[in-house]
Amino acid sequence: MNQPGQLRDLSAPECWELLAGAPVGRIIWSTATGPEVVPVNFTSDGSTIRIRTAAYSALVQKVDAERVAFEVDSISETDHSGWSVVARGQADIRYGADDGPTPEPWAAGSRHTTIAIAVDHITGRRLLPD
Amino acid sequence: MNQPGQLRDLSAPECWELLAGAPVGRIIWSTATGPEVVPVNFTSDGSTIRIRTAAYSALVQKVDAERVAFEVDSISETDHSGWSVVARGQADIRYGADDGPTPEPWAAGSRHTTIAIAVDHITGRRLLPD
Repeated sequence: MNQPGQLRDLSAPECWELLAGAPVGRIIWSTATGPEVVPVNFTSDGSTIRIRTAAYSALVQKVDAERVAFEVDSISETDHSGWSVVARGQADIRYGADDGPTPEPWAAGSRHTTIAIAVDHITGRRLLPD
Repeated sequence: MNQPGQLRDLSAPECWELLAGAPVGRIIWSTATGPEVVPVNFTSDGSTIRIRTAAYSALVQKVDAERVAFEVDSISETDHSGWSVVARGQADIRYGADDGPTPEPWAAGSRHTTIAIAVDHITGRRLLPD
């Protein structure tokens, strides 16, 4: 019989390393009618997470100068092992040139706006195999 | 006509079907210091999403009678195709017997508390391959 796995906290360097290797994350922000979330591809450099989006997107309209969360995870359905990382910080919109590497958007359309999340808090957990 | 890299909105039945097949989702809630998120396994039945957690968890302390979001996605790094679904609704904590199927927790510890999300809004998008 499967025993449920143990959770272990990850260090900040471990979190950044796992974040850097993840293809897709989820940016999460609060609205008056509840939290919102959208999966995005991204870049990270150990202090800032960057996303590219369209200037008219809901993201850009809502997250500028707001605190957001950014989540990545990788969890195996087979043995229930895996990890998750949540980075938190202030999002800032940069319409023109940015000072860091930005990701190539996967979705079609004009996506020349960068959202930069200045991460001030990063936590993560590893779920050990059954 | 479908164009590569295009986003297509999914119908509610499509969203529920994709949700039902996903092993892990992310429950998202708002706090005074920003949004929070945690990946969880879950059950769904076309109207309610159920999660099992510990009675003393941050989730239980914060989400009772609050609006939450629940996100699932599956996105291929190879061809950038995939989909995402976001369900929204009110979360209610059920400490005792529940009226629906609850998931077997993957993480260790006493997790006898059910969070039931009564979904009133579900949306999703498919990203077509490059």
